[in-house]
Amino acid sequence: MRAIHIVTTRLSSCCFKPILLLDLVSVSSSPRKLSIPNRRFISAATKPDGGRSGSIVAPLVTQQEFQKIDVNPPKGTRDFPPEDMRLRNWLFNHFKEVSRLFGYEEIDFPVLETEALFIRKAGEEIRDQLYCFEDRGNRRVALRPELTPSLARLVIQKGKSVSLPLKWFAVGQCWRYERMTRGRRREHYQWNMDIIGVPEVTAEAELISSIVTFFKRVGITASDVGFKVSSRKVLQELLRKYGVPENLFGRVCIIIDKIEKIPVDEIKKELGLTGISEDASEQLLKVLSVKSLDDLEDSLGGAGEAIADLKNLFSLAEKFGYSEWIQFDASVVRGLAYYTGIVFEGFDRKGKLRAICGGGRYDRLLSTYGGDDIPACGFGFGDAVIVELLKEKGLLPELRQEVENIVCALDKDLQGAAATVATALRDKGQTVDLVLESKPMKWVFKRAARVNARRLVLVGKTEWEDGLVSVKVLSSGEQFQVKLNDLE
Amino acid sequence: MRAIHIVTTRLSSCCFKPILLLDLVSVSSSPRKLSIPNRRFISAATKPDGGRSGSIVAPLVTQQEFQKIDVNPPKGTRDFPPEDMRLRNWLFNHFKEVSRLFGYEEIDFPVLETEALFIRKAGEEIRDQLYCFEDRGNRRVALRPELTPSLARLVIQKGKSVSLPLKWFAVGQCWRYERMTRGRRREHYQWNMDIIGVPEVTAEAELISSIVTFFKRVGITASDVGFKVSSRKVLQELLRKYGVPENLFGRVCIIIDKIEKIPVDEIKKELGLTGISEDASEQLLKVLSVKSLDDLEDSLGGAGEAIADLKNLFSLAEKFGYSEWIQFDASVVRGLAYYTGIVFEGFDRKGKLRAICGGGRYDRLLSTYGGDDIPACGFGFGDAVIVELLKEKGLLPELRQEVENIVCALDKDLQGAAATVATALRDKGQTVDLVLESKPMKWVFKRAARVNARRLVLVGKTEWEDGLVSVKVLSSGEQFQVKLNDLE
Repeated sequence: MRAIHIVTTRLSSCCFKPILLLDLVSVSSSPRKLSIPNRRFISAATKPDGGRSGSIVAPLVTQQEFQKIDVNPPKGTRDFPPEDMRLRNWLFNHFKEVSRLFGYEEIDFPVLETEALFIRKAGEEIRDQLYCFEDRGNRRVALRPELTPSLARLVIQKGKSVSLPLKWFAVGQCWRYERMTRGRRREHYQWNMDIIGVPEVTAEAELISSIVTFFKRVGITASDVGFKVSSRKVLQELLRKYGVPENLFGRVCIIIDKIEKIPVDEIKKELGLTGISEDASEQLLKVLSVKSLDDLEDSLGGAGEAIADLKNLFSLAEKFGYSEWIQFDASVVRGLAYYTGIVFEGFDRKGKLRAICGGGRYDRLLSTYGGDDIPACGFGFGDAVIVELLKEKGLLPELRQEVENIVCALDKDLQGAAATVATALRDKGQTVDLVLESKPMKWVFKRAARVNARRLVLVGKTEWEDGLVSVKVLSSGEQFQVKLNDLE
Repeated sequence: MRAIHIVTTRLSSCCFKPILLLDLVSVSSSPRKLSIPNRRFISAATKPDGGRSGSIVAPLVTQQEFQKIDVNPPKGTRDFPPEDMRLRNWLFNHFKEVSRLFGYEEIDFPVLETEALFIRKAGEEIRDQLYCFEDRGNRRVALRPELTPSLARLVIQKGKSVSLPLKWFAVGQCWRYERMTRGRRREHYQWNMDIIGVPEVTAEAELISSIVTFFKRVGITASDVGFKVSSRKVLQELLRKYGVPENLFGRVCIIIDKIEKIPVDEIKKELGLTGISEDASEQLLKVLSVKSLDDLEDSLGGAGEAIADLKNLFSLAEKFGYSEWIQFDASVVRGLAYYTGIVFEGFDRKGKLRAICGGGRYDRLLSTYGGDDIPACGFGFGDAVIVELLKEKGLLPELRQEVENIVCALDKDLQGAAATVATALRDKGQTVDLVLESKPMKWVFKRAARVNARRLVLVGKTEWEDGLVSVKVLSSGEQFQVKLNDLE
């Protein structure tokens, strides 16, 4: 391991991620004529294998106070070094390509929003995990926990200047402040697709179709994952039947959504606290176990809107070609207060992972912000569970850096010539990794292998005088000399 | 304008961005049986021109408290509706394509970092504008004002597991909390390219080459913009000459960087406060006005490192092919404390705009975080000034939504068939905007024009019974029927 200057301790493990201490001189703002000891920080010397560039840097102590710096990103957050960024780009490109295939336009919002945008009184988990702050102007702000409220805000703001329906998508970072640590991060990226202005179930059907298209593109099949589908109108109809006031709807949904996380008795108790009768509670919970539309029709006693919507959706699923991917499951409610109709979630059939994605209809969200109600639906698809699933299925791609050329001067005087060669190739649209220092050939070949260069372009004195460069095709070993202008 | 439900006022202007009030019922957590008035929110009805989808939504009042929601993004931040997102993507794609052309790998870091990462004692403007908070765990955190400190953190963390040199780039959002409002935003995106591990000026020369490549790609020429180049070693050598302690270096640079913003007397006063003699101050300020390397050589009395680096850079600029873009200008210092060598900034030759981009060498940043010093340089290039410049030069592209097909059922019963057609086309990689509702043909043509569809695919009853669809090529008006499978 490269030596690291530490005041209190010395590291021996390469894996250990240290909290490092700065051993620099503290300087007050008053004039002082300190005699700074002329210490030399010597960085990793050039090693025989040429693995690292060396440099001996003359000291020029900056005016920093002695302080601890953690070299890790803040708890629950991620850096994206190149290998992780390649995977992120691969995943996001699939999100974006699918969205464009469906004719959706990309949008984005600030990652920092007004806190009030996310405050709903329905007892959602998302609210308790709000990453909120007070800014210097004493405004309550929050790192967005989801994208839909910002979308609703933008739709209201745009007003009549946009023509409905809107088909929009976004891939944005969302934050939640979780106290517990069970491998869940405090930030993730979420792919959202939303349709604003279509009251019909064709909208939900198309949204699910787009997720299925994504799955197919990354190699996931209907035997790996499925969608559980229900409608909140089922609960709505039951609440009406039992005379439960409709303003309790969101809260009841949030309570019922916890059914797999807390004991049934606890659920009943919470429902009781809202004022729902024991009889109604029993009935609600009974209906949640229904797994077929016919049984649901029996339970609800007649064909209401819920049944009609769901039947329509299943019929459309057949036409879109993804029948085998979806199933009715009354237990699906989803944890956001604003859903009003069809709700769905993607799940892995092995039952090992959390929901892969989820969405639904939210026809009344806009009015909660003071806008007109406009029918709307959408989904959120995180970047965490899908990667776990792809990993498990062996479907994560091997992504590596790739450049077409590595260009290198054969002696120091030819650095400028190598720059000219690199520029000529780049002007032709060719990617070039230019070797910026004088290095032994062994080092250059190692580097070429590391960046997966297709060919090595060498600039030597004699050839260059004739306007020639040497080219070595690295896959075949083929070698030739060519005029710079003829190099394609 | 579409009617918006507002409690206190009524809007008449379409441009006015309202603060809307929620007129929803407050619900406490205790059980209540409120009789909710059965009000109907009626959204924009379908108009004869078919411009907006209509829907009458049965009320289902959610449990929200009466609260103000501003439909604008927080002060100083931006939404990206589709038209702005297209421009952002166009710009970022140029950043990314140029970076890849130069063989750089993409990276990213958390937008929320530990505050200490950004705290330097040199009196930088960036520190006063830190967007900092205390999180729920009482940790001091900040929205990153720049990307370089995170990069340094990641390089230290990676330690020996990465091979030098690293050539990395990032396009990330940065934040600064500015109290004043003179059209500057509180967030912007910044393109960064950095080279870690190369002590030679070839690194700076390549970085400037990449920015020139970007400018050329978007149509900006050397008569539009240029680069002012200097080296902080000029100041370093002067400070040494006058016996000023080296630990004052960063602070002196930050003071001198303000030269165009505050009066010279103020600069002298601030320099005096650091303990620098009047004589030295005079000399420093005099050298800053030097505009040629020969004059600089005279001023410094002999050829030191500063002169050697700069001469080398200008020689390389010629070889890279961008001589006409750069000029020596001793007044360039840059406002970040950590630069140690070459510094440069891109400027518009008309002198109307702030710096377009800026960068330099920061060979000692890593040691301020406790790591080994590794030679490094890089630049930051914001997304604000460049857009102003492109706008002024008439170089902003006209970007519009584009889809290949708009698919529409000719009657409601054929919605499913239209879904089948859309899926077939999407499976072939064709982009499809599927009309999700039953709409008059006039509406469909309007929509097709708005999304710039290349062709309209109509699904009619008689044809569909024979497996045929009608296709209208919208540019030519050409019309034909074709089997779905034969539609390419």
